[in-house]
Amino acid sequence: MKNALILGGNGGIGFAFVQHLLQRDNITRIYATYRRPESAEDLKILAQQSNQRLQLLQLDITDEDNIAQVVKGIQQDIKQLHFVINCVGLLHGGELQPEKSLRQLNSDHLIQYFQVNSIGGVLLAKHLLPLLQHKERNVFASISAKIGSIEDNYIGGWYGYRASKAALNMFMRTVAIEYRRKSPQTIIIQLHPGTTDTALSQPFQRNVPPEKLFTCDRTVTQLLNIIDTVTETESGQFFSWDGSKLPW
Amino acid sequence: MKNALILGGNGGIGFAFVQHLLQRDNITRIYATYRRPESAEDLKILAQQSNQRLQLLQLDITDEDNIAQVVKGIQQDIKQLHFVINCVGLLHGGELQPEKSLRQLNSDHLIQYFQVNSIGGVLLAKHLLPLLQHKERNVFASISAKIGSIEDNYIGGWYGYRASKAALNMFMRTVAIEYRRKSPQTIIIQLHPGTTDTALSQPFQRNVPPEKLFTCDRTVTQLLNIIDTVTETESGQFFSWDGSKLPW
Repeated sequence: MKNALILGGNGGIGFAFVQHLLQRDNITRIYATYRRPESAEDLKILAQQSNQRLQLLQLDITDEDNIAQVVKGIQQDIKQLHFVINCVGLLHGGELQPEKSLRQLNSDHLIQYFQVNSIGGVLLAKHLLPLLQHKERNVFASISAKIGSIEDNYIGGWYGYRASKAALNMFMRTVAIEYRRKSPQTIIIQLHPGTTDTALSQPFQRNVPPEKLFTCDRTVTQLLNIIDTVTETESGQFFSWDGSKLPW
Repeated sequence: MKNALILGGNGGIGFAFVQHLLQRDNITRIYATYRRPESAEDLKILAQQSNQRLQLLQLDITDEDNIAQVVKGIQQDIKQLHFVINCVGLLHGGELQPEKSLRQLNSDHLIQYFQVNSIGGVLLAKHLLPLLQHKERNVFASISAKIGSIEDNYIGGWYGYRASKAALNMFMRTVAIEYRRKSPQTIIIQLHPGTTDTALSQPFQRNVPPEKLFTCDRTVTQLLNIIDTVTETESGQFFSWDGSKLPW
Protein backbone atom coordinates (compact mmCIF):
# COMPACT_ATOMS: atom_id res chain seq x y z
CA MET A 1 0.00 0.00 0.00
CA LYS A 2 1.21 3.46 -0.89
CA ASN A 3 0.82 7.07 0.21
CA ALA A 4 0.96 10.28 -1.80
CA LEU A 5 1.48 13.99 -1.16
CA ILE A 6 0.30 16.54 -3.74
CA LEU A 7 1.49 20.11 -3.17
CA GLY A 8 -0.92 22.66 -4.61
CA GLY A 9 -3.65 20.02 -4.80
CA ASN A 10 -6.30 22.66 -5.41
CA GLY A 11 -4.79 23.96 -8.67
CA GLY A 12 -5.73 22.63 -12.11
CA ILE A 13 -2.99 20.03 -12.49
CA GLY A 14 -2.70 19.30 -8.77
CA PHE A 15 -6.42 18.67 -8.43
CA ALA A 16 -6.38 16.25 -11.39
CA PHE A 17 -3.47 14.37 -9.74
CA VAL A 18 -5.57 14.00 -6.58
CA GLN A 19 -8.52 12.71 -8.60
CA HIS A 20 -6.38 10.19 -10.52
CA LEU A 21 -4.60 8.87 -7.43
CA LEU A 22 -7.91 8.49 -5.55
CA GLN A 23 -8.91 6.03 -8.26
CA ARG A 24 -5.95 3.76 -7.48
CA ASP A 25 -6.85 1.01 -5.04
CA ASN A 26 -3.27 0.54 -3.87
CA ILE A 27 -3.10 4.09 -2.49
CA THR A 28 -4.10 4.27 1.16
CA ARG A 29 -3.75 7.93 1.83
CA ILE A 30 -3.39 11.09 -0.19
CA TYR A 31 -2.35 14.38 1.38
CA ALA A 32 -3.16 17.48 -0.64
CA THR A 33 -2.04 20.97 0.27
CA TYR A 34 -3.61 24.30 -0.65
CA ARG A 35 -2.71 27.84 0.37
CA ARG A 36 -5.94 29.83 0.27
CA PRO A 37 -9.01 28.11 1.81
CA GLU A 38 -11.38 29.93 -0.58
CA SER A 39 -9.63 28.25 -3.53
CA ALA A 40 -9.96 24.75 -2.06
CA GLU A 41 -13.74 24.23 -2.18
CA ASP A 42 -13.62 21.45 -4.79
CA LEU A 43 -10.84 19.75 -2.85
CA LYS A 44 -13.00 19.84 0.32
CA ILE A 45 -15.91 18.17 -1.45
CA LEU A 46 -13.57 15.48 -2.75
CA ALA A 47 -12.17 14.95 0.76
CA GLN A 48 -15.65 14.58 2.27
CA GLN A 49 -16.44 11.84 -0.25
CA SER A 50 -13.13 10.06 0.18
CA ASN A 51 -13.77 8.09 3.35
CA GLN A 52 -10.69 9.61 5.05
CA ARG A 53 -8.36 8.65 2.21
CA LEU A 54 -7.86 12.28 1.17
CA GLN A 55 -6.47 14.58 3.85
CA LEU A 56 -6.20 18.33 3.28
CA LEU A 57 -3.45 20.50 4.72
CA GLN A 58 -3.07 24.26 4.51
CA LEU A 59 0.46 25.20 3.47
CA ASP A 60 2.27 28.33 2.39
CA ILE A 61 5.33 26.93 0.64
CA THR A 62 7.28 30.18 1.21
CA ASP A 63 7.17 29.60 4.98
CA GLU A 64 9.71 27.00 6.11
CA ASP A 65 8.21 26.68 9.61
CA ASN A 66 4.88 25.91 7.98
CA ILE A 67 6.51 23.21 5.80
CA ALA A 68 8.17 21.65 8.85
CA GLN A 69 4.89 21.64 10.78
CA VAL A 70 2.90 20.10 7.90
CA VAL A 71 5.52 17.36 7.42
CA LYS A 72 5.47 16.67 11.17
CA GLY A 73 1.69 16.26 10.96
CA ILE A 74 2.03 13.72 8.16
CA GLN A 75 4.73 11.84 10.11
CA GLN A 76 2.36 11.37 13.06
CA ASP A 77 0.04 9.58 10.67
CA ILE A 78 2.24 7.54 8.30
CA LYS A 79 5.87 6.46 8.00
CA GLN A 80 6.39 6.42 4.22
CA LEU A 81 5.49 8.44 1.16
CA HIS A 82 5.63 6.93 -2.35
CA PHE A 83 4.58 9.88 -4.46
CA VAL A 84 5.40 13.52 -3.87
CA ILE A 85 4.18 15.80 -6.65
CA ASN A 86 4.94 19.49 -6.34
CA CYS A 87 2.39 21.39 -8.43
CA VAL A 88 2.85 24.76 -6.72
CA GLY A 89 3.73 27.44 -9.23
CA LEU A 90 3.37 31.20 -9.64
CA LEU A 91 3.10 32.90 -13.04
CA HIS A 92 0.72 35.80 -12.46
CA GLY A 93 -1.42 37.29 -9.71
CA GLY A 94 -2.52 40.84 -9.00
CA GLU A 95 0.26 43.26 -9.92
CA LEU A 96 2.67 40.42 -10.61
CA GLN A 97 2.56 39.60 -14.32
CA PRO A 98 5.14 37.90 -16.56
CA GLU A 99 7.46 40.60 -17.88
CA LYS A 100 7.31 41.32 -21.62
CA SER A 101 10.50 43.38 -21.42
CA LEU A 102 13.25 44.49 -19.06
CA ARG A 103 11.33 47.69 -18.37
CA GLN A 104 8.72 45.68 -16.46
CA LEU A 105 11.20 44.00 -14.11
CA ASN A 106 10.40 44.51 -10.44
CA SER A 107 12.79 43.35 -7.75
CA ASP A 108 10.09 42.32 -5.26
CA HIS A 109 8.22 40.33 -7.90
CA LEU A 110 11.41 38.55 -8.92
CA ILE A 111 12.01 37.56 -5.29
CA GLN A 112 8.42 36.30 -5.09
CA TYR A 113 8.94 34.11 -8.18
CA PHE A 114 12.04 32.56 -6.60
CA GLN A 115 10.33 32.04 -3.24
CA VAL A 116 7.31 30.22 -4.66
CA ASN A 117 8.74 28.49 -7.74
CA SER A 118 12.28 27.63 -6.62
CA ILE A 119 12.97 27.86 -2.89
CA GLY A 120 9.67 26.22 -1.88
CA GLY A 121 10.54 23.08 -3.82
CA VAL A 122 14.00 22.61 -2.36
CA LEU A 123 12.74 23.25 1.19
CA LEU A 124 10.22 20.44 0.64
CA ALA A 125 13.09 18.15 -0.34
CA LYS A 126 14.90 19.15 2.86
CA HIS A 127 11.97 18.31 5.15
CA LEU A 128 10.51 15.30 3.32
CA LEU A 129 13.70 13.20 3.36
CA PRO A 130 12.64 11.10 6.43
CA LEU A 131 9.35 10.13 4.72
CA LEU A 132 11.09 9.10 1.49
CA GLN A 133 14.10 7.35 3.02
CA HIS A 134 12.65 3.82 2.95
CA LYS A 135 13.13 0.60 0.98
CA GLU A 136 10.30 0.96 -1.55
CA ARG A 137 10.43 2.78 -4.87
CA ASN A 138 9.22 6.37 -4.53
CA VAL A 139 9.07 9.38 -6.84
CA PHE A 140 9.41 13.08 -6.05
CA ALA A 141 8.23 14.91 -9.18
CA SER A 142 8.10 18.68 -9.63
CA ILE A 143 6.10 20.50 -12.25
CA SER A 144 8.70 22.57 -14.06
CA ALA A 145 8.25 24.05 -17.55
CA LYS A 146 10.05 23.91 -20.88
CA ILE A 147 10.08 27.69 -20.72
CA GLY A 148 12.50 27.18 -17.82
CA SER A 149 15.00 25.51 -20.17
CA ILE A 150 17.89 27.95 -20.76
CA GLU A 151 18.99 26.12 -23.91
CA ASP A 152 15.48 26.16 -25.34
CA ASN A 153 14.99 29.91 -24.80
CA TYR A 154 14.70 31.56 -28.22
CA ILE A 155 11.93 34.10 -27.78
CA GLY A 156 12.79 35.78 -24.46
CA GLY A 157 10.49 37.59 -22.04
CA TRP A 158 8.96 36.16 -18.86
CA TYR A 159 12.21 36.86 -16.97
CA GLY A 160 11.10 35.94 -13.46
CA TYR A 161 9.17 32.80 -14.36
CA ARG A 162 11.94 31.49 -16.61
CA ALA A 163 14.75 32.14 -14.11
CA SER A 164 12.77 30.71 -11.18
CA LYS A 165 12.06 27.47 -13.08
CA ALA A 166 15.74 27.22 -14.13
CA ALA A 167 16.65 27.68 -10.45
CA LEU A 168 14.13 24.98 -9.47
CA ASN A 169 15.68 22.66 -12.06
CA MET A 170 19.14 23.25 -10.57
CA PHE A 171 17.88 22.81 -7.02
CA MET A 172 16.15 19.51 -7.81
CA ARG A 173 19.07 18.13 -9.80
CA THR A 174 21.25 18.89 -6.78
CA VAL A 175 18.65 17.21 -4.55
CA ALA A 176 18.78 14.13 -6.82
CA ILE A 177 22.53 13.86 -6.19
CA GLU A 178 22.16 14.13 -2.41
CA TYR A 179 19.17 11.74 -2.31
CA ARG A 180 21.07 9.17 -4.40
CA ARG A 181 23.37 8.76 -1.40
CA LYS A 182 20.83 9.09 1.39
CA SER A 183 17.65 7.67 -0.13
CA PRO A 184 18.57 5.66 -3.25
CA GLN A 185 14.97 4.44 -3.79
CA THR A 186 13.79 8.00 -4.41
CA ILE A 187 13.59 9.12 -8.03
CA ILE A 188 13.67 12.90 -8.41
CA ILE A 189 12.31 14.23 -11.70
CA GLN A 190 11.28 17.51 -13.29
CA LEU A 191 8.25 17.50 -15.56
CA HIS A 192 7.09 19.76 -18.39
CA PRO A 193 3.30 19.30 -18.51
CA GLY A 194 2.73 20.99 -21.87
CA THR A 195 0.32 23.91 -22.03
CA THR A 196 -2.62 22.81 -19.91
CA ASP A 197 -6.00 24.49 -19.57
CA THR A 198 -5.59 25.91 -16.05
CA ALA A 199 -5.96 29.28 -14.32
CA LEU A 200 -2.18 29.67 -14.65
CA SER A 201 -2.14 29.42 -18.44
CA GLN A 202 -5.58 30.97 -18.98
CA PRO A 203 -4.46 34.53 -19.94
CA PHE A 204 -1.87 33.12 -22.38
CA GLN A 205 -3.88 30.50 -24.29
CA ARG A 206 -4.81 32.73 -27.22
CA ASN A 207 -1.95 31.62 -29.49
CA VAL A 208 -2.02 27.97 -28.48
CA PRO A 209 -3.57 25.74 -31.18
CA PRO A 210 -6.49 23.74 -29.67
CA GLU A 211 -4.77 20.36 -30.19
CA LYS A 212 -1.79 21.63 -28.13
CA LEU A 213 -3.90 22.82 -25.19
CA PHE A 214 -4.29 19.78 -22.95
CA THR A 215 -7.07 19.20 -20.46
CA CYS A 216 -5.83 18.65 -16.89
CA ASP A 217 -7.04 15.07 -17.15
CA ARG A 218 -4.94 14.40 -20.25
CA THR A 219 -1.87 16.12 -18.78
CA VAL A 220 -2.03 14.08 -15.58
CA THR A 221 -2.55 10.81 -17.49
CA GLN A 222 0.60 11.62 -19.47
CA LEU A 223 2.65 12.68 -16.45
CA LEU A 224 1.58 9.67 -14.36
CA ASN A 225 2.75 7.48 -17.20
CA ILE A 226 6.24 8.96 -16.75
CA ILE A 227 6.08 8.84 -12.94
CA ASP A 228 5.07 5.16 -13.01
CA THR A 229 7.77 4.02 -15.41
CA VAL A 230 10.82 6.23 -14.74
CA THR A 231 13.81 4.34 -13.33
CA GLU A 232 16.36 5.15 -10.63
CA THR A 233 19.09 5.79 -13.20
CA GLU A 234 16.94 8.58 -14.64
CA SER A 235 16.72 10.47 -11.35
CA GLY A 236 17.76 14.10 -11.75
CA GLN A 237 16.42 14.40 -15.31
CA PHE A 238 13.92 16.76 -16.95
CA PHE A 239 11.09 15.14 -18.93
CA SER A 240 8.54 16.52 -21.33
CA TRP A 241 4.92 15.25 -21.18
CA ASP A 242 5.65 12.73 -23.97
CA GLY A 243 8.54 11.16 -22.04
CA SER A 244 11.30 12.77 -24.09
CA LYS A 245 14.20 14.38 -22.21
CA LEU A 246 14.53 18.16 -22.24
CA PRO A 247 17.79 20.11 -22.25
CA TRP A 248 18.53 22.36 -19.30
CA MET B 1 37.68 55.96 -27.79
CA LYS B 2 35.89 53.62 -25.42
CA ASN B 3 34.43 53.54 -21.93
CA ALA B 4 34.09 50.68 -19.45
CA LEU B 5 32.07 49.85 -16.35
CA ILE B 6 33.29 47.17 -13.93
CA LEU B 7 30.80 46.08 -11.28
CA GLY B 8 32.52 44.84 -8.15
CA GLY B 9 35.77 46.51 -9.21
CA ASN B 10 37.26 46.06 -5.76
CA GLY B 11 37.09 42.24 -5.79
CA GLY B 12 39.89 39.99 -6.99
CA ILE B 13 38.78 39.53 -10.60
CA GLY B 14 37.07 42.94 -10.87
CA PHE B 15 40.18 44.75 -9.63
CA ALA B 16 42.36 42.94 -12.19
CA PHE B 17 39.90 43.97 -14.94
CA VAL B 18 40.28 47.60 -13.85
CA GLN B 19 44.08 47.30 -13.92
CA HIS B 20 44.12 45.68 -17.35
CA LEU B 21 41.71 48.17 -18.91
CA LEU B 22 43.66 51.13 -17.46
CA GLN B 23 46.61 49.92 -19.53
CA ARG B 24 44.65 50.27 -22.77
CA ASP B 25 45.24 53.62 -24.44
CA ASN B 26 41.93 53.53 -26.32
CA ILE B 27 39.92 53.53 -23.10
CA THR B 28 38.99 57.02 -21.98
CA ARG B 29 37.08 56.31 -18.84
CA ILE B 30 36.61 53.36 -16.51
CA TYR B 31 33.87 53.32 -13.89
CA ALA B 32 34.37 50.83 -11.08
CA THR B 33 31.79 50.08 -8.41
CA TYR B 34 32.31 48.74 -4.90
CA ARG B 35 29.84 48.15 -2.08
CA ARG B 36 31.82 48.56 1.14
CA PRO B 37 34.20 51.55 1.26
CA GLU B 38 36.60 49.71 3.60
CA SER B 39 37.13 47.05 0.92
CA ALA B 40 37.97 49.59 -1.78
CA GLU B 41 41.28 51.00 -0.51
CA ASP B 42 43.38 49.59 -3.37
CA LEU B 43 40.83 50.87 -5.86
CA LYS B 44 41.08 54.37 -4.35
CA ILE B 45 44.85 54.39 -4.72
CA LEU B 46 44.51 53.31 -8.35
CA ALA B 47 41.94 56.07 -8.96
CA GLN B 48 44.20 58.75 -7.47
CA GLN B 49 47.00 57.71 -9.85
CA SER B 50 44.70 57.49 -12.88
CA ASN B 51 44.48 61.13 -13.86
CA GLN B 52 40.64 61.04 -13.72
CA ARG B 53 40.40 58.02 -16.03
CA LEU B 54 39.18 55.76 -13.22
CA GLN B 55 36.00 56.88 -11.48
CA LEU B 56 34.73 55.06 -8.39
CA LEU B 57 31.06 54.62 -7.55
CA GLN B 58 29.51 53.08 -4.47
CA LEU B 59 26.78 50.61 -5.42
CA ASP B 60 24.69 48.00 -3.67
CA ILE B 61 23.50 45.83 -6.55
CA THR B 62 20.51 44.59 -4.52
CA ASP B 63 19.05 48.12 -4.45
CA GLU B 64 17.39 49.06 -7.74
CA ASP B 65 17.12 52.78 -6.85
CA ASN B 66 20.85 52.76 -6.21
CA ILE B 67 21.48 51.16 -9.62
CA ALA B 68 19.27 53.77 -11.34
CA GLN B 69 21.07 56.61 -9.57
CA VAL B 70 24.57 55.30 -10.40
CA VAL B 71 23.61 54.85 -14.08
CA LYS B 72 22.19 58.37 -14.14
CA GLY B 73 25.49 59.66 -12.76
CA ILE B 74 27.43 57.92 -15.55
CA GLN B 75 25.00 59.28 -18.18
CA GLN B 76 25.73 62.84 -17.08
CA ASP B 77 29.34 62.17 -17.91
CA ILE B 78 29.38 59.97 -21.05
CA LYS B 79 26.94 58.77 -23.71
CA GLN B 80 28.27 55.29 -24.50
CA LEU B 81 29.70 52.29 -22.74
CA HIS B 82 31.73 49.65 -24.63
CA PHE B 83 32.51 47.20 -21.85
CA VAL B 84 30.29 46.25 -18.95
CA ILE B 85 31.75 43.51 -16.78
CA ASN B 86 29.67 42.30 -13.86
CA CYS B 87 32.04 40.75 -11.31
CA VAL B 88 29.69 40.98 -8.33
CA GLY B 89 29.17 37.60 -6.73
CA LEU B 90 28.32 36.14 -3.34
CA LEU B 91 29.51 32.71 -2.20
CA HIS B 92 30.14 33.11 1.53
CA GLY B 93 30.09 35.79 4.20
CA GLY B 94 29.38 35.66 7.92
CA GLU B 95 26.70 33.07 8.62
CA LEU B 96 26.06 32.54 4.92
CA GLN B 97 28.14 29.58 3.74
CA PRO B 98 27.69 27.26 0.75
CA GLU B 99 25.46 24.40 1.86
CA LYS B 100 27.06 20.95 2.05
CA SER B 101 23.64 19.32 2.40
CA LEU B 102 19.91 20.06 2.43
CA ARG B 103 20.03 20.29 6.22
CA GLN B 104 21.99 23.54 5.93
CA LEU B 105 19.48 25.27 3.64
CA ASN B 106 18.25 28.60 4.97
CA SER B 107 15.49 30.49 3.23
CA ASP B 108 16.89 33.97 3.92
CA HIS B 109 20.34 32.97 2.68
CA LEU B 110 18.84 31.52 -0.50
CA ILE B 111 17.03 34.81 -1.15
CA GLN B 112 20.31 36.67 -0.56
CA TYR B 113 22.08 34.48 -3.15
CA PHE B 114 19.38 35.28 -5.72
CA GLN B 115 19.40 39.00 -4.92
CA VAL B 116 23.17 39.42 -5.32
CA ASN B 117 24.05 36.77 -7.93
CA SER B 118 20.95 36.79 -10.16
CA ILE B 119 18.57 39.74 -9.75
CA GLY B 120 21.38 42.33 -9.52
CA GLY B 121 22.68 41.34 -12.95
CA VAL B 122 19.37 41.55 -14.75
CA LEU B 123 18.53 44.90 -13.12
CA LEU B 124 21.83 46.22 -14.49
CA ALA B 125 20.75 45.10 -17.95
CA LYS B 126 17.46 46.94 -17.47
CA HIS B 127 19.08 50.26 -16.54
CA LEU B 128 22.18 50.15 -18.75
CA LEU B 129 20.32 49.75 -22.05
CA PRO B 130 20.51 53.49 -22.98
CA LEU B 131 24.31 53.47 -22.54
CA LEU B 132 24.76 50.37 -24.71
CA GLN B 133 22.22 51.21 -27.42
CA HIS B 134 24.70 52.80 -29.87
CA LYS B 135 26.35 51.96 -33.16
CA GLU B 136 29.69 50.63 -31.89
CA ARG B 137 30.45 47.09 -30.82
CA ASN B 138 30.03 46.64 -27.08
CA VAL B 139 30.15 43.69 -24.69
CA PHE B 140 28.19 43.06 -21.49
CA ALA B 141 29.94 40.14 -19.78
CA SER B 142 28.90 38.56 -16.49
CA ILE B 143 31.09 36.37 -14.34
CA SER B 144 29.08 33.20 -13.97
CA ALA B 145 30.54 29.81 -12.96
CA LYS B 146 30.65 26.30 -14.39
CA ILE B 147 29.21 25.19 -11.06
CA GLY B 148 26.09 27.05 -12.22
CA SER B 149 25.72 24.64 -15.16
CA ILE B 150 22.79 22.30 -14.43
CA GLU B 151 23.99 19.76 -16.99
CA ASP B 152 27.50 19.74 -15.53
CA ASN B 153 26.32 19.15 -11.95
CA TYR B 154 27.55 15.73 -10.86
CA ILE B 155 28.71 16.26 -7.29
CA GLY B 156 25.87 18.31 -5.74
CA GLY B 157 25.99 20.66 -2.75
CA TRP B 158 26.25 24.46 -2.86
CA TYR B 159 22.50 24.73 -3.48
CA GLY B 160 22.09 28.50 -3.30
CA TYR B 161 25.20 29.42 -5.27
CA ARG B 162 24.45 26.88 -8.01
CA ALA B 163 20.79 27.87 -8.39
CA SER B 164 21.55 31.61 -8.33
CA LYS B 165 24.15 31.25 -11.10
CA ALA B 166 21.73 29.12 -13.16
CA ALA B 167 19.13 31.86 -12.67
CA LEU B 168 21.69 34.49 -13.74
CA ASN B 169 22.44 32.43 -16.85
CA MET B 170 18.74 32.30 -17.71
CA PHE B 171 18.28 36.02 -17.02
CA MET B 172 21.21 37.03 -19.23
CA ARG B 173 20.25 34.69 -22.05
CA THR B 174 16.82 36.31 -21.98
CA VAL B 175 18.50 39.74 -21.94
CA ALA B 176 20.54 38.72 -25.01
CA ILE B 177 17.29 38.03 -26.89
CA GLU B 178 15.76 41.39 -25.95
CA TYR B 179 18.98 43.31 -26.65
CA ARG B 180 19.34 41.65 -30.07
CA ARG B 181 16.23 43.59 -31.09
CA LYS B 182 16.89 46.83 -29.23
CA SER B 183 20.67 47.09 -29.24
CA PRO B 184 22.09 44.68 -31.84
CA GLN B 185 25.68 45.89 -31.32
CA THR B 186 25.66 44.60 -27.76
CA ILE B 187 27.11 41.14 -27.17
CA ILE B 188 25.87 39.53 -23.95
CA ILE B 189 28.03 36.70 -22.61
CA GLN B 190 28.41 34.60 -19.49
CA LEU B 191 31.93 33.69 -18.42
CA HIS B 192 33.37 30.89 -16.30
CA PRO B 193 36.66 32.27 -14.99
CA GLY B 194 38.09 28.98 -13.70
CA THR B 195 39.10 28.74 -10.06
CA THR B 196 40.91 31.99 -9.37
CA ASP B 197 42.89 32.94 -6.29
CA THR B 198 40.44 35.42 -4.73
CA ALA B 199 38.73 35.97 -1.39
CA LEU B 200 35.67 34.21 -2.82
CA SER B 201 37.47 30.95 -3.58
CA GLN B 202 39.99 31.17 -0.73
CA PRO B 203 38.25 28.80 1.74
CA PHE B 204 37.78 26.20 -1.02
CA GLN B 205 41.21 26.09 -2.65
CA ARG B 206 42.52 23.12 -0.69
CA ASN B 207 41.64 20.47 -3.30
CA VAL B 208 42.53 22.59 -6.33
CA PRO B 209 45.83 21.50 -7.94
CA PRO B 210 48.20 24.50 -8.14
CA GLU B 211 48.23 24.55 -11.96
CA LYS B 212 44.43 24.88 -11.94
CA LEU B 213 44.38 27.81 -9.51
CA PHE B 214 44.74 30.91 -11.67
CA THR B 215 46.07 34.27 -10.55
CA CYS B 216 43.60 37.13 -11.11
CA ASP B 217 45.98 38.49 -13.70
CA ARG B 218 45.93 35.27 -15.71
CA THR B 219 42.14 34.91 -15.41
CA VAL B 220 41.54 38.43 -16.68
CA THR B 221 43.99 38.01 -19.57
CA GLN B 222 42.06 34.90 -20.59
CA LEU B 223 38.61 36.46 -20.19
CA LEU B 224 39.59 39.66 -22.04
CA ASN B 225 40.74 37.47 -24.89
CA ILE B 226 37.16 36.15 -25.15
CA ILE B 227 35.57 39.58 -24.65
CA ASP B 228 37.73 41.07 -27.41
CA THR B 229 37.04 38.38 -29.99
CA VAL B 230 33.46 37.18 -29.36
CA THR B 231 31.05 37.97 -32.19
CA GLU B 232 27.44 39.17 -32.28
CA THR B 233 26.19 35.75 -33.35
CA GLU B 234 27.62 34.33 -30.11
CA SER B 235 25.60 36.67 -27.90
CA GLY B 236 23.66 34.75 -25.24
CA GLN B 237 26.30 32.02 -24.88
CA PHE B 238 28.23 30.69 -21.88
CA PHE B 239 32.01 30.49 -22.28
CA SER B 240 34.71 28.85 -20.22
CA TRP B 241 38.03 30.67 -19.64
CA ASP B 242 39.61 28.79 -22.57
CA GLY B 243 36.93 29.99 -25.01
CA SER B 244 35.06 26.67 -25.16
CA LYS B 245 31.28 26.77 -24.83
CA LEU B 246 29.68 25.40 -21.68
CA PRO B 247 26.33 23.58 -21.48
CA TRP B 248 23.57 25.18 -19.43
